[in-house]
Amino acid sequence: MDITTFIGILVAFGLVVTSIMMGGDGTWFVNYPSLMIVIGGTMGATLLAYPLSDVLGVFGVAKKVFFQSSRSTSDLIALIVDCAKKARREGILSFESQLKDIDDPFLVQGLQLAIDGMETNAIEDILTTEIQFIQERHKLGAEIFSTMGAFAPAVGMLGTIIGLVQMLMQMDDPSKIGGPMAVALLTTFYGTLMANLLFLPIAGKLKTRSKQEILISQMVMEGILSIQSGDNHRIVEQKLKAFIAPKARHSLEAAREAA
Amino acid sequence: MDITTFIGILVAFGLVVTSIMMGGDGTWFVNYPSLMIVIGGTMGATLLAYPLSDVLGVFGVAKKVFFQSSRSTSDLIALIVDCAKKARREGILSFESQLKDIDDPFLVQGLQLAIDGMETNAIEDILTTEIQFIQERHKLGAEIFSTMGAFAPAVGMLGTIIGLVQMLMQMDDPSKIGGPMAVALLTTFYGTLMANLLFLPIAGKLKTRSKQEILISQMVMEGILSIQSGDNHRIVEQKLKAFIAPKARHSLEAAREAA
Amino acid sequence: MDITTFIGILVAFGLVVTSIMMGGDGTWFVNYPSLMIVIGGTMGATLLAYPLSDVLGVFGVAKKVFFQSSRSTSDLIALIVDCAKKARREGILSFESQLKDIDDPFLVQGLQLAIDGMETNAIEDILTTEIQFIQERHKLGAEIFSTMGAFAPAVGMLGTIIGLVQMLMQMDDPSKIGGPMAVALLTTFYGTLMANLLFLPIAGKLKTRSKQEILISQMVMEGILSIQSGDNHRIVEQKLKAFIAPKARHSLEAAREAA
Amino acid sequence: MDITTFIGILVAFGLVVTSIMMGGDGTWFVNYPSLMIVIGGTMGATLLAYPLSDVLGVFGVAKKVFFQSSRSTSDLIALIVDCAKKARREGILSFESQLKDIDDPFLVQGLQLAIDGMETNAIEDILTTEIQFIQERHKLGAEIFSTMGAFAPAVGMLGTIIGLVQMLMQMDDPSKIGGPMAVALLTTFYGTLMANLLFLPIAGKLKTRSKQEILISQMVMEGILSIQSGDNHRIVEQKLKAFIAPKARHSLEAAREAA
Amino acid sequence: MDITTFIGILVAFGLVVTSIMMGGDGTWFVNYPSLMIVIGGTMGATLLAYPLSDVLGVFGVAKKVFFQSSRSTSDLIALIVDCAKKARREGILSFESQLKDIDDPFLVQGLQLAIDGMETNAIEDILTTEIQFIQERHKLGAEIFSTMGAFAPAVGMLGTIIGLVQMLMQMDDPSKIGGPMAVALLTTFYGTLMANLLFLPIAGKLKTRSKQEILISQMVMEGILSIQSGDNHRIVEQKLKAFIAPKARHSLEAAREAA
Repeated sequence: MDITTFIGILVAFGLVVTSIMMGGDGTWFVNYPSLMIVIGGTMGATLLAYPLSDVLGVFGVAKKVFFQSSRSTSDLIALIVDCAKKARREGILSFESQLKDIDDPFLVQGLQLAIDGMETNAIEDILTTEIQFIQERHKLGAEIFSTMGAFAPAVGMLGTIIGLVQMLMQMDDPSKIGGPMAVALLTTFYGTLMANLLFLPIAGKLKTRSKQEILISQMVMEGILSIQSGDNHRIVEQKLKAFIAPKARHSLEAAREAA
Repeated sequence: MDITTFIGILVAFGLVVTSIMMGGDGTWFVNYPSLMIVIGGTMGATLLAYPLSDVLGVFGVAKKVFFQSSRSTSDLIALIVDCAKKARREGILSFESQLKDIDDPFLVQGLQLAIDGMETNAIEDILTTEIQFIQERHKLGAEIFSTMGAFAPAVGMLGTIIGLVQMLMQMDDPSKIGGPMAVALLTTFYGTLMANLLFLPIAGKLKTRSKQEILISQMVMEGILSIQSGDNHRIVEQKLKAFIAPKARHSLEAAREAA
Repeated sequence: MDITTFIGILVAFGLVVTSIMMGGDGTWFVNYPSLMIVIGGTMGATLLAYPLSDVLGVFGVAKKVFFQSSRSTSDLIALIVDCAKKARREGILSFESQLKDIDDPFLVQGLQLAIDGMETNAIEDILTTEIQFIQERHKLGAEIFSTMGAFAPAVGMLGTIIGLVQMLMQMDDPSKIGGPMAVALLTTFYGTLMANLLFLPIAGKLKTRSKQEILISQMVMEGILSIQSGDNHRIVEQKLKAFIAPKARHSLEAAREAA
Repeated sequence: MDITTFIGILVAFGLVVTSIMMGGDGTWFVNYPSLMIVIGGTMGATLLAYPLSDVLGVFGVAKKVFFQSSRSTSDLIALIVDCAKKARREGILSFESQLKDIDDPFLVQGLQLAIDGMETNAIEDILTTEIQFIQERHKLGAEIFSTMGAFAPAVGMLGTIIGLVQMLMQMDDPSKIGGPMAVALLTTFYGTLMANLLFLPIAGKLKTRSKQEILISQMVMEGILSIQSGDNHRIVEQKLKAFIAPKARHSLEAAREAA
Repeated sequence: MDITTFIGILVAFGLVVTSIMMGGDGTWFVNYPSLMIVIGGTMGATLLAYPLSDVLGVFGVAKKVFFQSSRSTSDLIALIVDCAKKARREGILSFESQLKDIDDPFLVQGLQLAIDGMETNAIEDILTTEIQFIQERHKLGAEIFSTMGAFAPAVGMLGTIIGLVQMLMQMDDPSKIGGPMAVALLTTFYGTLMANLLFLPIAGKLKTRSKQEILISQMVMEGILSIQSGDNHRIVEQKLKAFIAPKARHSLEAAREAA
């Protein structure tokens, strides 16, 4: 699990729960009908706006992005450089049996194409299309979560208006207004909470992670193409390092020299 | 009918109605003058902003997009590949009598042009123009619904202000403020409800569906051009598969091999 | 007068007035100082942001766009095709005496240039510049109305705050708070009303109409250039029809065949 | 002074002051601490966001744009055409002594470069750079005023919250709530007033004026380059007129023929 | 320390504190649980949206940008011109021992590359990549602070709703509503304060400074390339001056002539 995600959820929700507990009875903030209307209304609006398969798919994307650590650039570079060495020594066909030991499915897919004897252009076309579809899926994911982040507070407000109308309609004794008003506010609370501590941050994370994943995938593609065209492993390394920040580049070199 | 649309409407409106019923008398939320001012004001503002024909046309577009399932990409690919086979065997003119059996009007239109002996460039021009006009119409539809989604809550607020002013002007007994205030809030309720559970999701759906339809139409155009230039059915299939996601491509291949 | 505009105004304002009349005394909503501050403040802010001549000009543009029907594309095509026929038969100079019978000033201007014997490039340059300046003027108009639509509610809120401060400062008897508070709300009412049922829809209309007018002007220019270069009237018609939707094209052809 | 600016300020602020005076004691709206917190907070936030020199410079730009009338296009065209005539008759060096009589510093700078014998390309480079830096400065100015227009209401709201907290903390007698609440509202009043009747309109004006000034400067540059390359004064005029609206062009010609 | 930053903080926070002190007890505005929920919630949401390393890194970027004065363009030009003179006289290798006396790390890095005998293209590639990564880092910094500026008021509102619900749930005596309501407002106060006087101005500053730093770095790169290709120091100066405003250029020349 990605450690930052864990810290973020702990800090944000932990503090909200703490502050609820400190100020009185925690059950005041649990109201199932209110929760139902906010979650249901947000999901309903989202299902009107997007096809069911996209909405379901988005949760998969979110889960993967959240609970899988990002691929380490330096490990990947080391791995690809090793592949390049082996490819020069033993030929590209020698990989066939070792592909199953490689963790990165995108790298495996690319190497398989090279082993199959496809031409450079064809490999580049296929991998580029693959990257574009990944990018499209991430973009759709971020968009759906942003949409949920926009609908949730609106539906919350809708629930609060319903509560207020019901309260005002049966208001006999103004001194007893407190309870129903508090309950009416809960939908706004749920909507704001979900939007700001869940949907919008997740949309942001998907955008950030997507950019990173795409860059890594492009780096892997560059590496595969370089291996396939028989480049020396130093040249492969040189090409891959152009994809990472100068600072990370230095630490990579230090590690390599120490090795 | 598109099943997701049905689920979305059921979930969103079902929950709102349930929560209204659970909290008291459901008729509290029915107020015809309030409904009239929100719908009328929103339609009036929209008719000031767009020509009548566009506003009426948009409902047609929405109906079609909502109640027609999207064309299935894999069925279409299979259909076009079959056409390609027949065209190579029996010549393109042999389609003439079978066009009426084909469901997709865009495909029919394109094949008719090919049968009529038009040149490739001319067919491409005509179909591209057709696609652009469809795209333009979808974009206009999404824009009009977004506009309605922006006007509805504003008109709702306007109605609430009218109600508040009327209530304040005749306020003799502060303890009787409840009923009129609840009624004043109803226009805001209607405006927010329509915008967030109807107009804005529909605008979103039109954008999503439009993108999909355009892509499918482009795929169909590619297929027609490929058939007309006498390509082998394998090449036609290859070209069409570039338009669908790699995952869908694999399942298509599996289905084909099973067949 | 454009019929949609009439319907829009009738529906929107009619319903607001009806709902005001139904809920009590209509004069409650008439307050000249409030009206003055909203209109004056909005105009003042707009005059600070734009030159006087532009603000005055914008009302002219709005009046024209609202009360003149859009030029009919099919009538214009018929007219230009007729011109093309005559030009081939009698020469382009034969128009001289008939220009005053043509309704469309842009078409007249273009034909005059052709009669004057200007070269194709020069005519295209002059008409393109003309179209750009029209476009610029429409864009400025839409921008100024959008600006007014943003300032009106803000100025309305300003008026409400002024009213609230005055009410609070002299509040002796809380039970008499109703009247002054209602009056304070009126500026927000006026600001919201003007922005949402007037300024913003007009801005929208200007954008929609502008797009349409520009397209028509480009079509007319294409026609003039085609006439000047001596094209056959069928080719002229072909070129012009590329500017209209496929559906409209069919109905045009049907009409022509019927004729 | 630009007359529209004067009218705008008079109308907007005049009406606000009038409506304040009509409703009660004008001093209710003067509260130095409130004014201090809004102006100070807005300036503080702006100084955090932009360098001191830019913030100070922006007031200079605003002053110039507001109190200097825009350069008259037709006067400038007449002036440049006169220069062109003289340059053809007496040579470009003959200007040397007359430069000090020309009002427009940009024109003077350009003519000086021509007199100094610089080549056309070099002059164009220098003047284009000059125009870009002016444009950059105007854009920065508009941006800073927009930023102030965004911070002022937020700081006003902050002041209102401070006032509310202080009022609530010492609330013994609910009937005496009026005065402190009115004072708390004043910061929101100041913030909204400054943003909507000052900062945002000024930002708008800077954008409008900038566009105009840049166009005029480009026209002047075109004129200087045309003079330097020894064009006939009629050609110079032709080139300059391409920069103004067709309508203005006609009135210019009418004036010229009358002369 | 950058003097404007100091003034900005002093003015903004000084006035808020002053106005708090003037209106009553300053401790009314100190509430640790409220502070905790706003800071914690904002940080939590930010950590969900961005990787931990980016969020930590952004504070470093902010510190550097805030507490380091911007590099002086005229000093840098003088320095580079001196380098150019020396390079022509003593050869580029003569710098080796003097690099440690140069303050600007980017200039040092570039000169080192030139001393190492790299080719012009390679140097340009490396420095351009370096500039792009700096730009990317600044952009990310501005984006993260904007995100915090958007989350802070939302989390503040969330805290206020929690406070209101707790207050309403235990409301027995309406006259004792003041204190709890004031406390509930404090989270909104903190959120608005942090967003408008801290996060958003810092985001703005990062954007402004970034633009400036990038321009200076591009100027330094131009200088290094010019030195490496053995340009005369006058030409180097000419090239560098194209990066600064015409006004600054004149004052630079005046200083140079006085020297």
